[in-house]
Amino acid sequence: MTLYPVVMAGGSGTRFWPLSRVRRPKQFLPLSSGKPLLLETLGRLKGLATPSHTYVVCGPVHAALVRRMVRSLPSKNVLVEPVARNTAPAIALATWCIAARDPDAVLAVLPSDHHVADPAGFRSVLQQAVKVARSGDLVTVGITPTRPETGYGYIRLGAPLGPGAFRVQAFVEKPDALLAQEYVSSKEYLWNGGMFVFAARAMQEAFARHLPDVAKAMEALAPLVGKRGFQKALARAFPRLPSVSVDYGVMEKARNIAVVPGDFGWSDVGSFAAIPEIRPTDADGNVVVGKATLLLDSAGCVVLGEGGRTVAVLGMRDTVVVDAGDAVLVIPKERSQDVRQIVEALRQRRLVGTL
Amino acid sequence: MTLYPVVMAGGSGTRFWPLSRVRRPKQFLPLSSGKPLLLETLGRLKGLATPSHTYVVCGPVHAALVRRMVRSLPSKNVLVEPVARNTAPAIALATWCIAARDPDAVLAVLPSDHHVADPAGFRSVLQQAVKVARSGDLVTVGITPTRPETGYGYIRLGAPLGPGAFRVQAFVEKPDALLAQEYVSSKEYLWNGGMFVFAARAMQEAFARHLPDVAKAMEALAPLVGKRGFQKALARAFPRLPSVSVDYGVMEKARNIAVVPGDFGWSDVGSFAAIPEIRPTDADGNVVVGKATLLLDSAGCVVLGEGGRTVAVLGMRDTVVVDAGDAVLVIPKERSQDVRQIVEALRQRRLVGTL
Repeated sequence: MTLYPVVMAGGSGTRFWPLSRVRRPKQFLPLSSGKPLLLETLGRLKGLATPSHTYVVCGPVHAALVRRMVRSLPSKNVLVEPVARNTAPAIALATWCIAARDPDAVLAVLPSDHHVADPAGFRSVLQQAVKVARSGDLVTVGITPTRPETGYGYIRLGAPLGPGAFRVQAFVEKPDALLAQEYVSSKEYLWNGGMFVFAARAMQEAFARHLPDVAKAMEALAPLVGKRGFQKALARAFPRLPSVSVDYGVMEKARNIAVVPGDFGWSDVGSFAAIPEIRPTDADGNVVVGKATLLLDSAGCVVLGEGGRTVAVLGMRDTVVVDAGDAVLVIPKERSQDVRQIVEALRQRRLVGTL
Repeated sequence: MTLYPVVMAGGSGTRFWPLSRVRRPKQFLPLSSGKPLLLETLGRLKGLATPSHTYVVCGPVHAALVRRMVRSLPSKNVLVEPVARNTAPAIALATWCIAARDPDAVLAVLPSDHHVADPAGFRSVLQQAVKVARSGDLVTVGITPTRPETGYGYIRLGAPLGPGAFRVQAFVEKPDALLAQEYVSSKEYLWNGGMFVFAARAMQEAFARHLPDVAKAMEALAPLVGKRGFQKALARAFPRLPSVSVDYGVMEKARNIAVVPGDFGWSDVGSFAAIPEIRPTDADGNVVVGKATLLLDSAGCVVLGEGGRTVAVLGMRDTVVVDAGDAVLVIPKERSQDVRQIVEALRQRRLVGTL
């Protein structure tokens, strides 16, 4: 049962504007180091799987960029969703494509745009998850919470399934602050980090039961996998699939769901406010990037001078300042999520040159 | 007794970085409208004096820029200080040069980089000051205070000298907040706006008495005024003069000092914090400049997008954001004075490309 990592690079978020653009969303940005998050993600798979067994799923706008960026992967391992249909159809696409090649495959579906501080810890958790998945369970990796975060979904632990694995009692929605505090104190809840490990066969069965339209469409496409005409047939079938997440469409409905807890310095890098979690800070908690960036008498700031120009910040607290070369952003750190509002406003005012 | 306005354009401040540069300080920036402050200043002299009677004093670095910018002035009316020696030597230079042309001249020495909201009011105050100056007094224009400002020097009113003019009882230093409040409440104090009106002859006498070295140097140069060799002789003599302000060196020592109160929407445009005084604000007290500047959910901000690039600000309060095209500044409005610290730090780190 060979492991096939599937890195999901179909995201098109706008929370990192002006660094992220329609043609270069978050997973292609070097937010945590000098390397794009996608390459960080692929890099931490070393020792778990070879490039020939590693897949990336992305949209058509980014396929060329992915192939250029990830020259080590065979071109056929870049799976292109004709349109965005959320995670369930994307995972089905990967599952059927890989099953056509290896019916005994075990897949590890991984977001392309998260950060992991401890890659060795990550690999060992993933290996544990692979073991559990061999029994036919759909395994999710649950992150041990480090704070009462209200921005994530949580996984409630059920009965133990042997060492380092549990049944999932429930997937629960993003809580309010009080509830989040209870979840963390109880030690019965983990963060849902969007990482899934499963045998291809088990996931095909789960789709057949819970999203039968998706399963049928994929079954019809299966004979074409690796052949001329596949992408064209996919382009016809895919847009008709329901846009649904694998959490909602499969995981929350299936019975054979397990969770393997992990604690490897994970961050979903959800907004500029997460940058101090994943990059070195100075004594005042500032992150300062850029060779002509000057920060004086400031604390808790994120100042990213990516355009090479002089960026001078004095006397600010908990503020995000980003210079992307052709656009500048200034926003309180606690409102980083609202970068989306800026992108929306720029669209409305037809100031689309930097989107 | 003809009026000769003398516009002092020798300033080299750094408080408007990154808009101001060593080669283009504040007086050359269009801070209050589409026109540089220097041109605004010259523009409001219309009706008071003709260009042939109007002078500009500046440093050698800016002489070419002034001549290019102010084509209406005769080139000889641009007086070039070989080195900066504060206001007393600069005013002496203008006084002796103009006296050589017209011994009965009355001079109005005016800063080049202030703002006046009511130019007609300004002109009428200046005409009043000219009347008083004809009697031989050195006249300063005192601004009626509109708030307990701690950033200005004050002038204490003495005995009335007829309509709209008073003796000066004292020039007083920048007060603390409590004292400033007392000054304003008492109605006995005016702001020192740095505008002086005097007969050339009276100022020559005052220099002879209070700064005799300056007077002697100028007397020695007087026969060369308008002749070949003047600038060379000036370049030898000027650096030896003491660097002293006309306030300290002459006005505070002379007896024949009068003040004419004025109330014409004056601002010294001392820093970015003054921009909302001199430019239109939106309903939330923001000043927003730039065709690709986007300000959302913010109040009391000054956002100047002078580089034409996209500048997006969301959720900020009382913050200055300036994009000059090759440099970006972010600073709390109340710390606008500290832009000087930034310029100093950029120098120290040899990031001098934008100075």
